[in-house]
Amino acid sequence: MHPYRTHTCGALRLENAGEEVRISGWIHRMRDHGQLLFVDLRDHHGVTQCVLDISSPLFAEVEAARVESVITVTGKVVKRSAETINPKLPTGEVEVQIGQFELQSAAEQVPLQVNSDEDAGEETRLRYRYLDLRREKMHRKIMLRSQIISSIRRRMIEQGFTEFQTPILTASSPEGARDYLVPSRLHPGKFYALPQAPQMFKQLLMIAGFDRYFQIAPCFRDEDGRADRSPGEFYQLDFEMSFVTQEDVFNAIEPVLAGVFEEFANGKEVTKPPFPRIAFDEAMLKYGSDKPDLRNPIEIADVSEAFDGGGFGIFAKLIKEKGFAVRAIPAPGAASQPRSWFDKLNSWAQGLGAPGLGYIVYEEGEAKGPIARNLEADRVAKIKELAGLKDGDAVFFACDKPLAAAKFAGTVRTRIGEDLDLLEKGVYRFCWIVDFPMYELDEETGKIDFSHNPFSMPQGGMEALLNQDPLEIKAFQYDIVCNGVELSSGAIRNHLPEVMVKAFELVGYSAKDVEERFSGLFSALRYGAPPHGGSAPGIDRIVMLLAEEPNLREIVAFPMTQRAEDLMMGAPAEVPEERLRELHMRIALPPQKKSAE
Amino acid sequence: MHPYRTHTCGALRLENAGEEVRISGWIHRMRDHGQLLFVDLRDHHGVTQCVLDISSPLFAEVEAARVESVITVTGKVVKRSAETINPKLPTGEVEVQIGQFELQSAAEQVPLQVNSDEDAGEETRLRYRYLDLRREKMHRKIMLRSQIISSIRRRMIEQGFTEFQTPILTASSPEGARDYLVPSRLHPGKFYALPQAPQMFKQLLMIAGFDRYFQIAPCFRDEDGRADRSPGEFYQLDFEMSFVTQEDVFNAIEPVLAGVFEEFANGKEVTKPPFPRIAFDEAMLKYGSDKPDLRNPIEIADVSEAFDGGGFGIFAKLIKEKGFAVRAIPAPGAASQPRSWFDKLNSWAQGLGAPGLGYIVYEEGEAKGPIARNLEADRVAKIKELAGLKDGDAVFFACDKPLAAAKFAGTVRTRIGEDLDLLEKGVYRFCWIVDFPMYELDEETGKIDFSHNPFSMPQGGMEALLNQDPLEIKAFQYDIVCNGVELSSGAIRNHLPEVMVKAFELVGYSAKDVEERFSGLFSALRYGAPPHGGSAPGIDRIVMLLAEEPNLREIVAFPMTQRAEDLMMGAPAEVPEERLRELHMRIALPPQKKSAE
Repeated sequence: MHPYRTHTCGALRLENAGEEVRISGWIHRMRDHGQLLFVDLRDHHGVTQCVLDISSPLFAEVEAARVESVITVTGKVVKRSAETINPKLPTGEVEVQIGQFELQSAAEQVPLQVNSDEDAGEETRLRYRYLDLRREKMHRKIMLRSQIISSIRRRMIEQGFTEFQTPILTASSPEGARDYLVPSRLHPGKFYALPQAPQMFKQLLMIAGFDRYFQIAPCFRDEDGRADRSPGEFYQLDFEMSFVTQEDVFNAIEPVLAGVFEEFANGKEVTKPPFPRIAFDEAMLKYGSDKPDLRNPIEIADVSEAFDGGGFGIFAKLIKEKGFAVRAIPAPGAASQPRSWFDKLNSWAQGLGAPGLGYIVYEEGEAKGPIARNLEADRVAKIKELAGLKDGDAVFFACDKPLAAAKFAGTVRTRIGEDLDLLEKGVYRFCWIVDFPMYELDEETGKIDFSHNPFSMPQGGMEALLNQDPLEIKAFQYDIVCNGVELSSGAIRNHLPEVMVKAFELVGYSAKDVEERFSGLFSALRYGAPPHGGSAPGIDRIVMLLAEEPNLREIVAFPMTQRAEDLMMGAPAEVPEERLRELHMRIALPPQKKSAE
Repeated sequence: MHPYRTHTCGALRLENAGEEVRISGWIHRMRDHGQLLFVDLRDHHGVTQCVLDISSPLFAEVEAARVESVITVTGKVVKRSAETINPKLPTGEVEVQIGQFELQSAAEQVPLQVNSDEDAGEETRLRYRYLDLRREKMHRKIMLRSQIISSIRRRMIEQGFTEFQTPILTASSPEGARDYLVPSRLHPGKFYALPQAPQMFKQLLMIAGFDRYFQIAPCFRDEDGRADRSPGEFYQLDFEMSFVTQEDVFNAIEPVLAGVFEEFANGKEVTKPPFPRIAFDEAMLKYGSDKPDLRNPIEIADVSEAFDGGGFGIFAKLIKEKGFAVRAIPAPGAASQPRSWFDKLNSWAQGLGAPGLGYIVYEEGEAKGPIARNLEADRVAKIKELAGLKDGDAVFFACDKPLAAAKFAGTVRTRIGEDLDLLEKGVYRFCWIVDFPMYELDEETGKIDFSHNPFSMPQGGMEALLNQDPLEIKAFQYDIVCNGVELSSGAIRNHLPEVMVKAFELVGYSAKDVEERFSGLFSALRYGAPPHGGSAPGIDRIVMLLAEEPNLREIVAFPMTQRAEDLMMGAPAEVPEERLRELHMRIALPPQKKSAE
């Protein structure tokens, strides 16, 4: 007989009754019924009930074992009596009569209870992560993460992609965030950087002639942690393709994402490919966001024309004198809400810095509220038409500079959608946001800057850069959004050195600057580069969506704290002076703070 | 029509003749036959011949395009005439008549020739790696690497393993090599370390109750590069299992390794599981190595007894006075070798620091050579018997302290095997080396130290530690070896804190030392740890064996130089002063050398 197990703790069924078996695992729970001692034994695969009679010579020994100790039990499988069958447990029809017992590893008193979901506090959970991970819920979510990643890999390969590893010790990349640096021992005073993303390398792989690259890629950014982003490292489904248009990229990745989501959605509905493509300008107008949650049925409308020159003086004046826009945010069926509901929203808006949140209520053929009282009837009707309203609806207004009005309208849309419980349930709604502007105006400096990735191909290429107003140029840049969460940003890349130089020139870089700052990639483009593009959906965000967990800590096996510490392993830590000498480094501590940390 | 391609450059066949197609790729080669211009167009998938008549208005433009430029060709597929069919090319029965031509990306003069295997020098190859990777041989090997890794993943999952990601920014690990350090911005004066291996985390995953872990894991060691090891990073198939014996580990991984090797062996024979298990002591005796190449049929024998007290005075004296051993290395069929061959081996041995390489030649019922002349006939016959020799064979001798004699005999075995071309061809010979000693004597200090991994379980457990001579204790530690290459080292781990403390006590550590130095893992063992074990075969070594490439540079897409530099991306590099201030670091350069580097 195997020294540890003939079966796992999830394997035994009625048909095993009568067999002599051996199982090993952790003592999940122990119940002393006087004459009988019940031990629930748990392993990766499940839980099996073991039982011992008080007459057994083993009784004292088993009874003394602490919960979470690892034990091996040998004994006969017996059918449970009808009233003791546990239908919730796959092994619930049988139990094992303990004939032999071996304590493999005794547990001390545990600092967090494994057989309960009771909150143990973040510090305890992370310091004793190996205990936290034993909890059924955590175990399930970490397994889910693995299964999702494995499914993604399989589907990418099915789509003709090949996985490549790109260097982790590499050069600082121009991604915009802060790199982690690694001092070089062999090259005094020089540093490697951990990649913020394998962007340069995936483009180089395309230039090297590999057609469809992907990687479940570790990425590193030295930024402060957030609930949805680990401090330190995170994973992306990084991919890139050659000889493709934007639509080809969408067609390649949509079946992967839709497939993975369907596989793990637990019955939720998933947008069928092709996913809607929404232009950035349209998204900002209709949803007030470039990551719209399409579960929210509310669509914003521009109603500036209805107010322009009208009787509601404040808006009319702002439109005329400052070029403000007025956006209407419908609140379907909100006419039945009490006055207090409107007041509460008004206070909320003021709390966000808005002067207030004007509204009209359409009810019984009439229009009510302070704005309606001041606005001409045909204009009130025009708003109803433009915003697609019907009797029984209310509508709120955001009046500001167009971009600010759009963003605030988006915030109101989200709030009303939640308040009125309008969001579709049980669905994953995907969309692409396309046609991002290539440039934007920095309002502080008055200068033009890249609005997203400077390495994206401008729509219209050199022609557009030479002849169009930069602020009108769109880029072949796209985001994929699911339920209001941006999963990734991607682009068709600029593979033409002369177009790249021109694109940077518009924001004030010289050709020499470009050549020096991005020399690795820039040189490569001179030796025959294919048109190429890709994207990099965030693995952690995909898992968070599918696990319905807003906190990254719940879907990563060994996360760091928000302060970027590994409490279990004790990282970061001090290192011997001698190690620093080898690296040609000295510590230069900041002046000590007066109060203790 | 798609702007870049209706077909890949590997797709067109006779049945496409007559179709109007579009293909894109790199100009692999251009041949001007006066009236006709031939362009071989290459992409990831293959090469297609395109042809243009001198009468075409496109002629000048196409002719002017440089090799390695990226172009798009549109035109009709035509059947090649019988005499121009290229049977070596899958597309060799057809060609594309260029109707339209678009230059997507012009190439400058390339610094290395892509359409040839001519050596370009390491620096050029690495600086222009994207060109080097376009070469057919490199392209194929990098794809092979990806396919091997993908096959390993699939097979591990089939064996019930689950892939988990473990942290890359973590604490310094006690693996023995030098860590890469990453200064922490949030914690002044403290450092993360990149993992030398995910050893601690995989053990913690077992303690957390996950049964079978694996990971294609990036590992980092700040050591100088070797042909078979990258400076910086490398990949391991890291795996671990719970509730297993050593045999269970072997049974789980053998089908994976044998399967992968069979899949990619290109017809070579692969050892069928179960692989031979060879005890360390036996391997040292029979092969003079703990990583024996089993393709070499030579087996070493101990012939000390034949020399002990015999007429060959030098050996007899060394055996008697110094406790030396004499090992016999058979050279099958070597009796027919000229005297010069024996002399050459003798010089070679002297070059290695041996006093010489004595031998006996068994020929025509006689024994020849200086040793045979001095040794009694029955002793000469005894040697023949012990070493399994027959007429026509020769035998060499290594006389030294037992371990040194074993190692030198191993070196001689390898040399003779190669010299006489005895190695089996076209095979991958696997074996496990088991029963490694737990401890060894440090000859310099006279102290006992761990011979391999201090975290392995000693055979016999606490009992053995308490009662046996430490140098006699074996560990549940094993290596897997293929064709003389150690693929990995593994072990059943010591999961019992009190046994671990005792094991360290024998080499001079206190319980407190153990607790402090390995606190993360050590604490975890106190809360119920399952018996567990695993291993971590080197991915790079597996790929090198299957690609038959002795140099790592040939099977990694973006390797660093031996001096740990990325010439293409310019890493490591200097960083702005301000970045160092943020990290609370100052550079402390070593005193400058007198001569320029």
